[in-house]
Amino acid sequence: MNILYTDDTICAIATAQGGAIGTIRVSGKEAISITDKIFTPVNGAPLSERKPYTLTFGYITNEGGEIVDEVLVSLFRGPHSYTGEDSTEISCHGSSYILQQVMQLLIKNGCRAAGPGEFTQRAFLNGKMDLSQAEAVADLIASTSASTHRMAMNQMRGGFSRELSALREKLLHLTSLMELELDFSDHEELEFADRSELSEIASQVETVIKGLVNSFSVGNAIKNGIPVAIIGETNAGKSTLLNALLNEERAIVSDIHGTTRDVIEDTMNINGILFRFIDTAGIRETTDTIESLGIERSFQKLDQASIVLWVIDSTEAKVQIDALKDKVIPRCEGKKLILVMNKCDIANDATRSECLKDLPGATIINPVSTLEGSGMNYEVISIAAKQRKGIAELQKLLTKAAALPEVTQNDVVVSNVRHYEALSHALEAIHRVQDGMSMGLSGDLVSQDLRECLFHLAEIVGGDITNDEVLGNIFKHFCIGK
Amino acid sequence: MNILYTDDTICAIATAQGGAIGTIRVSGKEAISITDKIFTPVNGAPLSERKPYTLTFGYITNEGGEIVDEVLVSLFRGPHSYTGEDSTEISCHGSSYILQQVMQLLIKNGCRAAGPGEFTQRAFLNGKMDLSQAEAVADLIASTSASTHRMAMNQMRGGFSRELSALREKLLHLTSLMELELDFSDHEELEFADRSELSEIASQVETVIKGLVNSFSVGNAIKNGIPVAIIGETNAGKSTLLNALLNEERAIVSDIHGTTRDVIEDTMNINGILFRFIDTAGIRETTDTIESLGIERSFQKLDQASIVLWVIDSTEAKVQIDALKDKVIPRCEGKKLILVMNKCDIANDATRSECLKDLPGATIINPVSTLEGSGMNYEVISIAAKQRKGIAELQKLLTKAAALPEVTQNDVVVSNVRHYEALSHALEAIHRVQDGMSMGLSGDLVSQDLRECLFHLAEIVGGDITNDEVLGNIFKHFCIGK
Repeated sequence: MNILYTDDTICAIATAQGGAIGTIRVSGKEAISITDKIFTPVNGAPLSERKPYTLTFGYITNEGGEIVDEVLVSLFRGPHSYTGEDSTEISCHGSSYILQQVMQLLIKNGCRAAGPGEFTQRAFLNGKMDLSQAEAVADLIASTSASTHRMAMNQMRGGFSRELSALREKLLHLTSLMELELDFSDHEELEFADRSELSEIASQVETVIKGLVNSFSVGNAIKNGIPVAIIGETNAGKSTLLNALLNEERAIVSDIHGTTRDVIEDTMNINGILFRFIDTAGIRETTDTIESLGIERSFQKLDQASIVLWVIDSTEAKVQIDALKDKVIPRCEGKKLILVMNKCDIANDATRSECLKDLPGATIINPVSTLEGSGMNYEVISIAAKQRKGIAELQKLLTKAAALPEVTQNDVVVSNVRHYEALSHALEAIHRVQDGMSMGLSGDLVSQDLRECLFHLAEIVGGDITNDEVLGNIFKHFCIGK
Repeated sequence: MNILYTDDTICAIATAQGGAIGTIRVSGKEAISITDKIFTPVNGAPLSERKPYTLTFGYITNEGGEIVDEVLVSLFRGPHSYTGEDSTEISCHGSSYILQQVMQLLIKNGCRAAGPGEFTQRAFLNGKMDLSQAEAVADLIASTSASTHRMAMNQMRGGFSRELSALREKLLHLTSLMELELDFSDHEELEFADRSELSEIASQVETVIKGLVNSFSVGNAIKNGIPVAIIGETNAGKSTLLNALLNEERAIVSDIHGTTRDVIEDTMNINGILFRFIDTAGIRETTDTIESLGIERSFQKLDQASIVLWVIDSTEAKVQIDALKDKVIPRCEGKKLILVMNKCDIANDATRSECLKDLPGATIINPVSTLEGSGMNYEVISIAAKQRKGIAELQKLLTKAAALPEVTQNDVVVSNVRHYEALSHALEAIHRVQDGMSMGLSGDLVSQDLRECLFHLAEIVGGDITNDEVLGNIFKHFCIGK
């Protein structure tokens, strides 16, 4: 089946199993006539004779004349519908048996069961939204926090598209000036004037694209979680700490089904910020003959993190810090490092202070003390993971270390890998444009890079995309019924 | 909170978490005005100025002016709504974050989060349905098969209520005749004539109630599953058989959340019929010194079953059958007994035939042979549970043994324990009426029993129920949002 084929009528259960209400969506040329075949209004005319944006109460009946359910049908007529096509939504009692029966009746009467995201894909193909807006629909459904919600909502409502459209205008203007230059290329003074204006415009475009590319680190952290590595020796209490963190917050970690993201184990939302914990193998207890290979593997995972929790058993703090500090500290450059002094309930403070002498700038933050104004390269916190002492304080430290900028609903933040890649390519192209202009390359060579930049920006909104594979990859991660 | 209080406006998420669409229901005096406070239509007038049974597209915005979601709002005005009150349904993107935000906004603006079943309870209290119809709503949502669906649909659409209403008419007629008799109690010949007609009516009523009471065994089996006990010695392969049966069918066992029934482990739907497997402790291997106590306990569970699967290890069939037959066979009177000869792959046919000689009428049904026309008191089937040989054939035997009558959407079948109890009490009362009349008791004494019969029938439809506790018990098993 060609996924761009929109000539038939599709149907899908759009609600999750188990609620009080279950909704079936139908969209396509025959949506209304097929629904009419299985639906009998309690009063009055069939759907085909009714106005759009109305609700009709009635019965779904099967071939045997048995009532399958009492339902409410919502009626939409293209182009004023989500997909841009004639559509109905059948609101049933939330029994999976009933929903399956209604689906079967629709299919028997000429509908096809929709694939994932096929309604949104039709909305895109029918020009109701561009591709980046369509992608935002899945992100919106997957949103679990104010930040992910704001990013997705802005993108769905066209904030990103407008930004790209403005860029496109500028690039088209640049291209037309370049063509003007080509036409008048024998007039030397004209060329000079143009090039100066061209450079200015190219620079503006470069600044905007660079800003979008850079926003991805924030967007990605918001969407997929800030990567946090937990390292330390096996007996230091790494797993206990992870469990203590997760157990505290497990309740507010959502299972998102059928969205663009697979559920990642050990992701958690702390104070509205999503953290993604990277599992590193515990470093062996044997401090004398630490196997470099095992440590190296843990350290490679550490490289992916932007925050590192180094868990230390306070009762043997000096041994553990000495064993690893030359390996850990240098690798944490550019990252936030937090020394987690565990088992504080059985260690004595003197020992801890003693062993931290070698780490300049370190001050122990006791669970109850304030975390502000320490001005260190790394923070030290004293906890007892097993007793859950200091966990809330560690969460505060994590929130502080995350240091994510507040995203408002007006900010355009790139959070989609596909967009990031397209923007990176566009940035390379505009850099080539700038280089070409400064090197005095001829207008037609520069134009080629301009066209490439335009192409990559168009990729994001799907302007030229009629490629099954690209669309297939985008929509296969949607849920059924969306 | 008095659950009969319907003066406020309630809201609830009516769809399960995880779908493409999420719906929030609002019902009560302020439903439309509160929705208007958080909702801005894209075009035109606020909801308060719109017609009922219309859909309006627009935005939900929070206090900060941020857009929470683009939504469709369905508008209903009492009494033409599910609850009989003014209502709205807000259809959002299926993100739990969004749904929670909308709920919070509704609550901040004066709604109260609804308890389980509170919408249906309001429908009942506002006279949109009687109590048996309200109960059927939960059964309908929980329905997983054609039979459970038909029973619930008939009850929800008032089939049962009409039957009860007809009974009530008859009983009221009887009461009025009884009063007539009281008025003319000095005319002996009149009394005689009345009593004959009275007896006839009482007998009709008794027949109908008895039929309803008796239908409960079928209704209950359809709704909660036909009880099947699996008995046998521990090594006979009881657990393997159960697993083979469950694994085969596990996929089509539905998890129903938030419905009237808790999920029962080891329930499965075979060919549209629900079976409920009763776990019995395996009878000890030691055949010489079988402990009566242990066996007795398994046998007590057997008593609850209507079908008994006696699993026998074919390789030691004679020993196992001899050890238990005198205990098993008599206890299976009135039940369907199936001898399951397990491990047929390693046993030889001669042994099996030999040991079955003592069981008159038994014929081995090989997995491939037909099951019809054996005319036995019990069936024998040869399987290899581990290799899953003969499992499909055993399922066919179970389906045949179930022998449930086909329920049509016009049949009134009692499936609710509360109804069964009320009907049983009504039956007792009408029996007392009949006894009283045949014993020539005075009209006022008989009238008392007639009133009691009427009371119990009224209990079912909730005619006189203004009791918080009774209603609370009924609706607490509903899902939120229904």
